[in-house]
Amino acid sequence: MGVSGCGKSTIGKLLAQKLNIPFFDGDDFHPETNIKKMCSGKPLNDDDRQGWLETLNNLAKEQLTTNSCIIVCSALKEKYRTILNEGIQNNSEWVFLEGSFKQILDRINKRENHFMSSNLLKSQFKILEEPKNAIKIDVNLTPNAIVKMIKKELTVKSQFGLFGLGVMGKSLSRNLANKDFKISLFNRHVEKVEVDVAKNFKEQYSELSNAAAFDDIAAFVNSLQTPRKIMLMVNAGKTIDYVIEDLLPHLSENDILIDGGNSNYKKTKERNVYLKTKGIHFIGTGVSGGEEGALKGPSIMPSGDKEAYKQVQPYLEKISAKDKNDLPCCTYIGPEGSGQFIKMVHNGIEYVEMQLLAEVATILKAIGQNPDEISTTLESWKDTASSYLLEITTAIFKKKEGNDWLVNKILDKAGNKGTGNWTTIASAEFGVPSTLIASALFSRYVSFYKEERILLSKSFVTHSNSELNITTNDVLEAYQFARIINHYQGFKLIIEASNKSAWNLNISEIARIWTNGCIIRSTLMEDLVDVFKETTNILTDVELIEKVNQFKPSAKKVISQCVLNDLTTPALSEAIQFLNGITTEYASANVIQAQRDYFGSHTYQRLDDPSGKSHHTNWN
Amino acid sequence: MGVSGCGKSTIGKLLAQKLNIPFFDGDDFHPETNIKKMCSGKPLNDDDRQGWLETLNNLAKEQLTTNSCIIVCSALKEKYRTILNEGIQNNSEWVFLEGSFKQILDRINKRENHFMSSNLLKSQFKILEEPKNAIKIDVNLTPNAIVKMIKKELTVKSQFGLFGLGVMGKSLSRNLANKDFKISLFNRHVEKVEVDVAKNFKEQYSELSNAAAFDDIAAFVNSLQTPRKIMLMVNAGKTIDYVIEDLLPHLSENDILIDGGNSNYKKTKERNVYLKTKGIHFIGTGVSGGEEGALKGPSIMPSGDKEAYKQVQPYLEKISAKDKNDLPCCTYIGPEGSGQFIKMVHNGIEYVEMQLLAEVATILKAIGQNPDEISTTLESWKDTASSYLLEITTAIFKKKEGNDWLVNKILDKAGNKGTGNWTTIASAEFGVPSTLIASALFSRYVSFYKEERILLSKSFVTHSNSELNITTNDVLEAYQFARIINHYQGFKLIIEASNKSAWNLNISEIARIWTNGCIIRSTLMEDLVDVFKETTNILTDVELIEKVNQFKPSAKKVISQCVLNDLTTPALSEAIQFLNGITTEYASANVIQAQRDYFGSHTYQRLDDPSGKSHHTNWN
Repeated sequence: MGVSGCGKSTIGKLLAQKLNIPFFDGDDFHPETNIKKMCSGKPLNDDDRQGWLETLNNLAKEQLTTNSCIIVCSALKEKYRTILNEGIQNNSEWVFLEGSFKQILDRINKRENHFMSSNLLKSQFKILEEPKNAIKIDVNLTPNAIVKMIKKELTVKSQFGLFGLGVMGKSLSRNLANKDFKISLFNRHVEKVEVDVAKNFKEQYSELSNAAAFDDIAAFVNSLQTPRKIMLMVNAGKTIDYVIEDLLPHLSENDILIDGGNSNYKKTKERNVYLKTKGIHFIGTGVSGGEEGALKGPSIMPSGDKEAYKQVQPYLEKISAKDKNDLPCCTYIGPEGSGQFIKMVHNGIEYVEMQLLAEVATILKAIGQNPDEISTTLESWKDTASSYLLEITTAIFKKKEGNDWLVNKILDKAGNKGTGNWTTIASAEFGVPSTLIASALFSRYVSFYKEERILLSKSFVTHSNSELNITTNDVLEAYQFARIINHYQGFKLIIEASNKSAWNLNISEIARIWTNGCIIRSTLMEDLVDVFKETTNILTDVELIEKVNQFKPSAKKVISQCVLNDLTTPALSEAIQFLNGITTEYASANVIQAQRDYFGSHTYQRLDDPSGKSHHTNWN
Repeated sequence: MGVSGCGKSTIGKLLAQKLNIPFFDGDDFHPETNIKKMCSGKPLNDDDRQGWLETLNNLAKEQLTTNSCIIVCSALKEKYRTILNEGIQNNSEWVFLEGSFKQILDRINKRENHFMSSNLLKSQFKILEEPKNAIKIDVNLTPNAIVKMIKKELTVKSQFGLFGLGVMGKSLSRNLANKDFKISLFNRHVEKVEVDVAKNFKEQYSELSNAAAFDDIAAFVNSLQTPRKIMLMVNAGKTIDYVIEDLLPHLSENDILIDGGNSNYKKTKERNVYLKTKGIHFIGTGVSGGEEGALKGPSIMPSGDKEAYKQVQPYLEKISAKDKNDLPCCTYIGPEGSGQFIKMVHNGIEYVEMQLLAEVATILKAIGQNPDEISTTLESWKDTASSYLLEITTAIFKKKEGNDWLVNKILDKAGNKGTGNWTTIASAEFGVPSTLIASALFSRYVSFYKEERILLSKSFVTHSNSELNITTNDVLEAYQFARIINHYQGFKLIIEASNKSAWNLNISEIARIWTNGCIIRSTLMEDLVDVFKETTNILTDVELIEKVNQFKPSAKKVISQCVLNDLTTPALSEAIQFLNGITTEYASANVIQAQRDYFGSHTYQRLDDPSGKSHHTNWN
């Protein structure tokens, strides 16, 4: 912007060329009536300008849907700029070419065939309201110097901020930088423990040469373009709340905070409500893929305010994994903490997939395989039961340290960071029987009682002398069987939560963004994308019914043998129990109801009374 | 109390005789110096009185430890009464014998050998501060009339209030009345739904003839002796908070509210803190026994402020069940919501005991027994595995309706009121693997998906043709096996919660108060009372180890057969899995740790590094 003759067109063209984006001269969009008026030496009034400014605003909006552009326009009054900026305040940047009346008049006098008279220039200076939030450049400089300065000013602010440089924060930062986003990095300073973390990290990786590194919150926030987009990658729990409080004084209205940690979905909902009162948008986002996924393309599950999400969408989609159709493994999940809810369930499913592989290894070991042989067996399952977790487990059992396998040297106490715990709690709260997730969680808990296990192992008779009469193919089928049940249960929890919370989640889309980037990606998950287009209950899908029926005999054989041989396989075992339960027309719960009525007068319903009326019996 | 010559001694002696409690004349406890002073016509000063009043206060305290008593004393000033009342404010009642100077002087003049002069009487009237909270009686009445009036005033107020007359509230009320407590009953008035509930209830049972019935809160509260003792028997959840708010304006400092419902232990803790700010004591109390237990003697688990508990102890102990040594099945559990916590776990154990019996019935049915035969089988287990739940289940299977067994007509959707749910959540939160409780809870949840079960039952192959090759004795041993695991898990949750919450619970005492009155009373529970005197881990008890080892082969046989025959027995099955897990020296959790380190750099510990250091491997 600037008065006519300030050099807008020259500078604008040159800048557009350097930035490789389209250039538009506002004057080219004047309607003919305006041009005639100006040629006749009469200044345009505001009514003349209204339609023209709207045209330019629409032009800018249209260009922003794909990329960006340079538009030049005198835009002398604040109210003109308001029209030009309408709806794109957060995506536009003003550059004001500044000069004195004499300087500009000299420039105009050198021109030929221009429709501007010097009288009009006087009127322009008269109405000029200098902008407050523009990059201001002196027109006395050479065009090249001017363009260089603008470019520097335009790019000095970062597009995206990453707060917290743990394993996941670091990987996501590099991912963003690799996608040519200009980012700011922040990590707190803790004397002697966390010193210059961001700075050292930036120096470590060449792709971060353009990133800005901070350990001061105010400087970090100020380095970001508004509305700011800050992704929090800190420990879930109270830390998030402390970080939010630390950031708040530095943020501006409409800034966007993205929580990419494994926060509890209930807390995300609360934070959403709280930050809305402060004018800040909050996007709770599940991110799965571990260290490597975060770097090369994770699965991303954002939720919260949909309008705010649109502003971070380009970033998240760009860094996410791509599915087999090259679509981003990132989609807007739903309101409140729904993104963090499905990430939690994702982790629950993951717990089970990991547990099943641990149990498979237990069985393969019991039938005499050493880790190399276990690895070979798992490798051979790739064609029928391919998954990321199968793949890494295959690699794990191959890994040697000296003459021994590394896996044999690892302490058998499994850690957990709370999401399996929360999924089990959510199951209990939503009334959904996620038995395998509970089983996997409790297996980790049992593993934690190492000292007690050692003590008790001495007192109890285990490992009978009967032999395991099963093949690796039996084990494979039992494993496939349990995986189907696991996915049925996990998605059932999501579906029930969606219904009860009115989230209206798209289950097929959720399965789709889990086909790549995340820890539970698998060919089974790919199959489920289509299954969920037809039904929310995968046990009504003809092909899956066939598979379950095909695999069940092996599962029964494997589990009965494991029970007889004192092998610990709770998740595989529970998979059978659950299928039996959910396919039993008349369950044993009638006995429970009779007992409850007997001792507590809790009443019961009757098979022969479809009204659902409560009945009570004096059983004595 | 009253001035000398008002007739205190005469009335006091007569009243003590009528109430059958000891009588003491305060004057008999004056030291000799005081007596000499009074005889010489000098009035006592406050220093003279101090030691004497303390002596009387100690006398009262001592008497109250066993029963009650009548003490007479002039107690003319408020500050004298404060000394006399110190520490027993809630257990004393003042009676003031009132008369004019002339009336009293006449009485004194009729006496012989009294050491009081009429001059002293004048000084007594001068210093008399009339009490505000005393029963006032005119000395002009005959002694018999006076005693009758006092007795009426003393007994017209109720000792204990029962708020909420549902199934449990009604039974507890009758229990209290049967123990000769004077009680007040309250039930809200809800137009057309709950009308005159308390009044009608009182009229229904002769033992309630002495009870007072209300549907007005103020009148109910005013009918109680202070400090008031009000037991709330309303629905758990928000209702309790509403009821507390309704009661608060009518209560006085040091009144005691007892929540006898299945409230969440976390809420009980919050309410405790909140009510403390209002000067009200709150006792969270588990009550188990169902309708019949509440009437004849439940198991009671009070927690909260121990000093406040002492005031309700006589009532709760009296109405509770008695153990085999005739001790009350009621004991102070611990601080905060510990009583409601153990009641919650009690219900979790109960869920499992019920589920195991339902599974047992499933198996007995599958081996061809009809309900009568199942009942006979269960009856025959009484000698080896006696429990209340076994007993009622035996009765349930015998119950006929026309030509068919009633149990066969009950809809197989099991209800739940939240405690199994909370126990599972507490397990997840405390890191304790209560797998059987989760299994029993989720079995109820599965039962709830009745329509889905019917639908899916048509698509899946079930009930193979192989035959169940097990005896009823195998089933009995599998059942006994699972019950030991259930009790191990339930108590483990209590022990861990006690440790982590610093409740310092007495586990053996908890087992003891569960040996009678409650739903999970059994001979196994009786055995555990002694086991817990020696150890907190029942799987280290020699006799129980022997039993587990004895029963396990049958459990393995039963479960492997059930799996092969598509029978749904998740809790029995999980009992084996759990024992295998907790007795495995080297578990498969090493695989989980390797996986977590592979994809998330979560690190692992090593068997050969007892320092517990974190190790990380680049697995690729």
